[in-house]
Parts: sequence; C-alpha cells; structure tokens
Amino acid sequence: MMNKVCIIGVGLIGGSLAKAIIRTKQATQVVGFGRDVKRLQATQDCGVITGHTTDIKEALKGADMVVIATPVGSFESILKDIQPHLESSTIITDVGSTKTSVINVVSSVFGCLPSNFIPAHPIAGKEKSGFEVCDDKLFIDRKVIITPTESSHKRAIESVRIMWQAVGASVDMMSADEHDELLGMTSHLPHMLAFSIMNYLISQNPNASLYAAGGFRDFSRIASGDPIMWRDISLNNKEAIVKHLEGYRATLDDLIGAINAEDSEAVETLFKNAKTTRDQWLT
Amino acid sequence: MMNKVCIIGVGLIGGSLAKAIIRTKQATQVVGFGRDVKRLQATQDCGVITGHTTDIKEALKGADMVVIATPVGSFESILKDIQPHLESSTIITDVGSTKTSVINVVSSVFGCLPSNFIPAHPIAGKEKSGFEVCDDKLFIDRKVIITPTESSHKRAIESVRIMWQAVGASVDMMSADEHDELLGMTSHLPHMLAFSIMNYLISQNPNASLYAAGGFRDFSRIASGDPIMWRDISLNNKEAIVKHLEGYRATLDDLIGAINAEDSEAVETLFKNAKTTRDQWLT
Repeated sequence: MMNKVCIIGVGLIGGSLAKAIIRTKQATQVVGFGRDVKRLQATQDCGVITGHTTDIKEALKGADMVVIATPVGSFESILKDIQPHLESSTIITDVGSTKTSVINVVSSVFGCLPSNFIPAHPIAGKEKSGFEVCDDKLFIDRKVIITPTESSHKRAIESVRIMWQAVGASVDMMSADEHDELLGMTSHLPHMLAFSIMNYLISQNPNASLYAAGGFRDFSRIASGDPIMWRDISLNNKEAIVKHLEGYRATLDDLIGAINAEDSEAVETLFKNAKTTRDQWLT
Repeated sequence: MMNKVCIIGVGLIGGSLAKAIIRTKQATQVVGFGRDVKRLQATQDCGVITGHTTDIKEALKGADMVVIATPVGSFESILKDIQPHLESSTIITDVGSTKTSVINVVSSVFGCLPSNFIPAHPIAGKEKSGFEVCDDKLFIDRKVIITPTESSHKRAIESVRIMWQAVGASVDMMSADEHDELLGMTSHLPHMLAFSIMNYLISQNPNASLYAAGGFRDFSRIASGDPIMWRDISLNNKEAIVKHLEGYRATLDDLIGAINAEDSEAVETLFKNAKTTRDQWLT
C-alpha cells in the first residue's frame, strides 16, 4: 500500500483514478492538486480525493506517486512547477493521450528522462469532463498502455502496472511511437471525423440535426469532447493524426469513386467488409 | 379503422410498423408479404403480423393500404409485381430512405404517378435488421417525412399522416429533393463515414480495434448496418451523397490544414464550434 498519491488535475480521468485508488485501498492519502480551491473542495466533498492543495510543494511532499492528469498541452508548465519539489523516490506517471510528445517534454524540462518516469495512457473516457462525472469503475476491463522510456526503471514500471491492474485495467506495454500510431487511428481519427461532421453540418444547415436519428447521435457523440484536450492531442500527435486523416480521406475517395461509377458490386463489398469487421470486433 | 394493411418486406421497419399498427388498433388485418414462408410464419408467430402470404394477388386483395418496406433497390421489381393486382382504392406508400429515386421508379413502372401513391420515410432505425428486432414503439417521438408528388391526393396524404401519427411519430412534409438533400447529410453521410473508418482500419491494422474505447464503438455503430440496404441508398441518392461526401472532405481538409500549420487557435475554434452545436442539439 502506498502512503500518498498526488493527482494533478482532478477531472474525469484523474478523479476516476483517484476514486478507484481509494476504492481499492491502494493508498492512505490521495491528494488532488489544482488551481481552483472551490472545485478541489467540492471534489473532496464528493469523496473523489482524500485531501487537496493548491501548493505544489505540499502536494508532492512525501508522495509515492504523482499522476499528471491535465490536458497534454499543459504538461510543460506543470513539469516546470513540479521539478524543484519532486522527491527522488516519487514515481512520475501520467494519463496523457499522446506519449511521444509527453516523453519529449519531460526530457526537455528535466534535461534527461528520469528513471522513475513511467508514461501511461488509460484507454477510457466519456464525452463529458470534470470531477462530477468521475467513476471509480471507469477502468474495469479497459486497456492501459504503458510506454516505458529507455531510462524507465523496472520497479517503477511494475508499480504503475500494479496500480492500474488493481483498479481493474488490463495493461499492455509498447513503444511511445507504436502507441501514438495506434491511438492516432482508433481514438484521435474518429474524434477528428466527428468534430468535422458537426462543422460540416454547421456550414450547411445547423437545423438539419432535427432530422437526425439515433445513428447520427451515436456517431457524433465524441464531438462533445473537451475542445482544449482535443486541440492539445491533435497538435501533440500531429504526424500520426495527419497521416491517418489523409489515409482515411483516400479510403473515402475510393467510396466516392465507386458511388460515382455506380459500381454496385464495389459499393456492396466495401459495406460488407466494414460490417463484418465491426460485427467480429464486438464478439 | 382500416380493414387490411399489406406490408411488403417484414424486416425491422416493416415489422415494427406492422406491430405498431396492431398495437394502436388501426387495422383488422396486417398481412405480411414476402418470399420466405418460414420467416413469414415465424414473424406471425411473434405477433408482428396477423397473417402472411407469398402470393402478391392475395396480399393486395381488399387492402386499404400497401406499405413497401424492402431495400429501395428492389422497388422496381416489386412495383412490377404489384401493379397488375392493385385495387384502385388502395393507398400505396413506402418507408424508403431515398425519395426522388422511389418516385422515379413508380413513375416509370406505372407510366404515371398514381394519386394514391404517398412516398414517406420514417427517420428511425437500428443497426440490426430482421423481424426479430421489431419494436412497436420504434416510431414514438420520431420524425416521419412525407414527400407528396404533384399527383398525390390530399385524402391519401391524410391517411398516411394519420397512420404515422397514431404510432407516435411527428410528421413533416417536404419535397423529395429537399428530403434527399437533408437525409443525405444527416443519415447517409455519417453511414458512409462509418463504413469508411472500418475499411480504413482493415487496410491498416484490423487488430487495432483491440485498443478502441467506447468512443470508437459508438462512432462505428452504424457501420453494422445492412450492406444491401446501404448499397441501394448510396446508389439511389448518389448526387446528394457524393455532394455531401465532397463537402465533408473539404471540411476535413480545413482541419488537416490547421493541424499541419499547428494553428492552435483555429483547431480549438473548430472543435469548440462542433461541440457547441452538438451540445445544443441534445438540449
């Protein structure tokens, strides 16, 4: 059991992890750090954290682990705030959706990659944000990807792995590049596409949504995601996202070509393959 | 109350309508017509229809209304089968997702547009098909669009309107062109995009779906739609669908451009506008 875990940014993911750590009795104290003391107090009142502070020195004091759970665009300034107060034994981990950029910013702020820095990414989320929608069961049966750096210490990796497994997740290891390429496709790409369909709708006829059924509702759900978080992700995984957007556009062009040519067989095959893959994935 | 309604094609929509007509006591008999007598018997055993036949003459005899509820690609052959046996007082309506093409095929098969032909489209569906997933409450609070032709008789329009309102839908009227343009955007476009993301995934790494979260699951749900139905829709609303796919592609290009340029403000604005529109739509 850890004595103290410090969560920096007690939103949906940070708060759900905090609550799950408390539920699974992995730490005596789970302290939330943030800037808005009223929100932190409200978060604590809801039982999401056991304590809170707006003083980073106090937040880090005696912490076995610090989890950075803010949008990745804020990591540089947060790491600069953390660095002077970090104890040598504290494990540093994060929940950022992009991993190469996070590793680069740690390396740039610290001047090296600390051996107790273990980048991680839980593949879980909701389109809503904030501690109000926290769920201490959010990570049950979800994947968490750990992307150790060449400097990551084995024992620190194990601590992070055990923490995630204890809250119900299944942990995989891969390189940061592999992660960014993979998530660029399965998570970042659909978000870009969902934001874009709403933008296309706005450009055409915003009232058209009156005539949208459940299909459109589900399809566009992720367009209700946090714009700041997604801005940061799209800029921090730019290469993979642009690559996948361009690849997707080529797939779309194939479909446009088949429809334009009224190639009934080609269109049917495209739809059949898509359906088969999705149906198989669900089973 | 009608004496007899004939449903041609007792799948999800035809079956749900049949069941809803029975539930709301709008007809004494609701007879299903199809080719597979075993499935028709099973459908009747489930209480979806009150009778069934594979003989089109028998199906149409004395019918107050016939509802064509098969994929739009089959309309031509069905209309040819129906025409010789249709009684002059029978109202002909359909539930097809494209309206201009349906009107054109009726006009071509009948040599004119019958005054009791009332094209309609209930905006409701599931990604599953078949009578097994029928739901007699499927149309409650859903929109149904009626697209009368210049020949449609007022009394026939009213009968179709009353039938849909009685099963809980809210009925709007517009031209077939308006319908096809609108639904091309709110329904056909997202389906094309969802089928395409599955095809892109297949082309890249089919196992990537292991690392997909709930966002991807919802986003791709409509890719489990019936390939034949969607093939027919995409070919029968080709112009509007290609127009919207190309318009969407241009919106995507704007996003790719903003990400490539690392234009943080532009990316954030695109995501914010998208989120705002979606959040407003839900309330």
